[in-house]
Amino acid sequence: MVKKADRRLLEKLVEISGSDNVIADGPAYEDYSHDMADYMAEPAVVVRPRSEEEVRRVVELARSMSIPILARGAGSSLTGAAVLEGALVIDTRNMNRVLKVDTVNWLVEVQAGVSLEDLNKELKPHGFFFPPDPASSYICTVGGAIAEGSGGLRCVKYGTMKDWVVALRLVLANGRVARLGEPLAKNRAGYDLVHLVVGSEGTLGVVTEAYLKIIPIPSVKTNRFLLTFGDWESTGEVIGRLRSSKIMPHLFEFMDGETIHALNEKTGTAFDESEATLLVDVEAVVTAEATKIFESCGALTIKLAKDEEEAESFYQARTMAYLAVKSTATGVQVEDISLPIDRLGEYLRTVKRVAKKHGLRIPVNGHAGDGNVHPVILYEVSDPKSREAAGDAFEELCSIAIGMGGSVSGEHGIGSQKPRQLGEQLRAHEGEETLRLMKEIKKVFDPEGLMNPGKYVDAA
Amino acid sequence: MVKKADRRLLEKLVEISGSDNVIADGPAYEDYSHDMADYMAEPAVVVRPRSEEEVRRVVELARSMSIPILARGAGSSLTGAAVLEGALVIDTRNMNRVLKVDTVNWLVEVQAGVSLEDLNKELKPHGFFFPPDPASSYICTVGGAIAEGSGGLRCVKYGTMKDWVVALRLVLANGRVARLGEPLAKNRAGYDLVHLVVGSEGTLGVVTEAYLKIIPIPSVKTNRFLLTFGDWESTGEVIGRLRSSKIMPHLFEFMDGETIHALNEKTGTAFDESEATLLVDVEAVVTAEATKIFESCGALTIKLAKDEEEAESFYQARTMAYLAVKSTATGVQVEDISLPIDRLGEYLRTVKRVAKKHGLRIPVNGHAGDGNVHPVILYEVSDPKSREAAGDAFEELCSIAIGMGGSVSGEHGIGSQKPRQLGEQLRAHEGEETLRLMKEIKKVFDPEGLMNPGKYVDAA
Repeated sequence: MVKKADRRLLEKLVEISGSDNVIADGPAYEDYSHDMADYMAEPAVVVRPRSEEEVRRVVELARSMSIPILARGAGSSLTGAAVLEGALVIDTRNMNRVLKVDTVNWLVEVQAGVSLEDLNKELKPHGFFFPPDPASSYICTVGGAIAEGSGGLRCVKYGTMKDWVVALRLVLANGRVARLGEPLAKNRAGYDLVHLVVGSEGTLGVVTEAYLKIIPIPSVKTNRFLLTFGDWESTGEVIGRLRSSKIMPHLFEFMDGETIHALNEKTGTAFDESEATLLVDVEAVVTAEATKIFESCGALTIKLAKDEEEAESFYQARTMAYLAVKSTATGVQVEDISLPIDRLGEYLRTVKRVAKKHGLRIPVNGHAGDGNVHPVILYEVSDPKSREAAGDAFEELCSIAIGMGGSVSGEHGIGSQKPRQLGEQLRAHEGEETLRLMKEIKKVFDPEGLMNPGKYVDAA
Repeated sequence: MVKKADRRLLEKLVEISGSDNVIADGPAYEDYSHDMADYMAEPAVVVRPRSEEEVRRVVELARSMSIPILARGAGSSLTGAAVLEGALVIDTRNMNRVLKVDTVNWLVEVQAGVSLEDLNKELKPHGFFFPPDPASSYICTVGGAIAEGSGGLRCVKYGTMKDWVVALRLVLANGRVARLGEPLAKNRAGYDLVHLVVGSEGTLGVVTEAYLKIIPIPSVKTNRFLLTFGDWESTGEVIGRLRSSKIMPHLFEFMDGETIHALNEKTGTAFDESEATLLVDVEAVVTAEATKIFESCGALTIKLAKDEEEAESFYQARTMAYLAVKSTATGVQVEDISLPIDRLGEYLRTVKRVAKKHGLRIPVNGHAGDGNVHPVILYEVSDPKSREAAGDAFEELCSIAIGMGGSVSGEHGIGSQKPRQLGEQLRAHEGEETLRLMKEIKKVFDPEGLMNPGKYVDAA
């Protein structure tokens, strides 16, 4: 490992990207030592390249000195994927231009460091948008969202990042640039390496540019419902009944009573603190049909947003859920379980049981419409027993999900949080051969193990 | 290479799959020596396993005898991907069951040998369908469509196979089974190997089962237009104008005058033989807007199908186009060019110029709505000059497409038809590193080069 202040390294980096863009101490440096879930690790140094060529030279330099490389956008990861001890951190946010908006091919060409919010701001005047909307959209970068294969609230209808990236440029560990995929509607030339990189958590190379699909802002009228239920199972029943009735909600968000309580307490809202609250968008034409389904599933209250403003206030509450809940404890472990949709109710009940068993609070929110839920395990950092209980509950919730045919990650990824659980899941569902193939593919891209090492597939 | 009649091989295969399912001669055997575009190669023997375990044992046997393996469905490939000299052919069509239709998770679990038509027949009573619809849907298997990453007429709206496969089971060259992906709406556990296999043309392993996404049969009302134009450029203009007006056609098919002429002659239809004919479906609500666009692009005739029956007759004509054209010459080379949509008109004009230069007929059809066109190069097998001209025109059309930012394959794949052009394209657009990564990934899956060797990425 290179010492933080290694003079030769600093000099070379300054030569490449200028002294303003090399950070080795001070508050700016401190920002890079944690992520949004407070995973901590101290990097060797941070560089903010202004071009792909600078990224390339930085990677060559890191390789020549055998320093691990961590590509990082806004650091909004929740799994430790965006922090790495002793790393040369490549912050891509100086490369934040939208290079081309193409309204004929419905594509946008962007640099990796542009934030999803800025991208959508540029698209709006054209009448287009980019659907994936992780909760961190206001800061997170395209590069980060590609690395994490991010999802979000709209993904129940539109899918996750993997459904929207058609081509990208990747600086490999050997310092060369690979351009993967073609900016075309259809392409069958060669193996699909683009999808290998989406969700690879910075372990295969540094993404510098991407072509993303965009679509017109939908003109279809939707209605937003706020629903409350007396039990968690209803959540699974509602989404199951909607889907088997061929209604795909445009939004299907879940919060439990504890989450609503935290929201009311921390943000001054006054929502009913029932066992389960759902936020559901359906197309206006199926409003009556959906209402019947909600009723027959035993909704306690069915509130149709009366205007845009009220609809937006429901949505805002949902986006604040995690931070509101997090602020009620000193420690937090966020789960990111993806389940077969028909087993959602059963799993949510299990979360309650696990919380009780370990004497913990585990509020749950999630994108229940695609089977993706986030139990938020709360504990007290200063209390070893509480910490241990949280760890046990975390393990248990993963194992139960695996046993039910679920995945330990729907959208947050693995990072340093869950490599062991990833291994457990792959061995249980996909088999040892699949894990072996993944490890060998990692070696093809990064034979010396320089790219965000020691996590994810490496550590599974 | 193993001789056709190798006794030990035959005995072992009979032991595994029964004598009814081992084919070493006769008319049934002859069927396996060509594909739908008449690429020819004589296999060593054909086996039709009844289960994944049989596939596994067959692969182990082939490996122990160093015999190349060719997985094959209906053999409807157009690029030589489904024929291989001296191969042990594994015909998957004895594994043709739909294992589970899941209308809650909107997934279907199928064996690789089921045909797309049979799959859709099973889905119809549930009110669901599987969108990818290659022209060969009436025979082609799920396994073949996965291997080829197939597209089709509906793919302008719904994308190609890669957008619909969520998980699969793959028998590797080492005789072990890898299960790739999870049958879940969201999953971020490990690198995405599913998309590596989609479009891998049988070079990474034998697909035995898959989980595919399904969706409800759409209830949105569409209208079907048959349009004629006096020039080819209008095609590009129409699709460009529709897309920049945020209208995504559900179908946007192109046929030139020569194709229509062949159709009229061979199938008894009586369509106008204008320079360009388009078949376009748009949602009923935008019918007026679309009509204005057609008019302003100079349509000679605008015919709105008056009922289901007429709409279906237009569609049937389009699906017959290739066979009608093919029957007018003794030799055929089908191109499968994918272009940026805004360069389509320019390319179509170029095809005409190339045809003239080489003294050939090159009728064109295609899925112009996603920039994918099929120039059909006709020649006379008995005339060496004509054969040579066809070869030259083929090369030229590929090179021009590459120079315009296009791909040498949108949906047919590479096979033994275009590995050199694949190499040319990858070097021009994606770079040497990308090709190197692909070749190394092939070695990870198939270190001894047993799976459909000597084609595609191997030969690029």
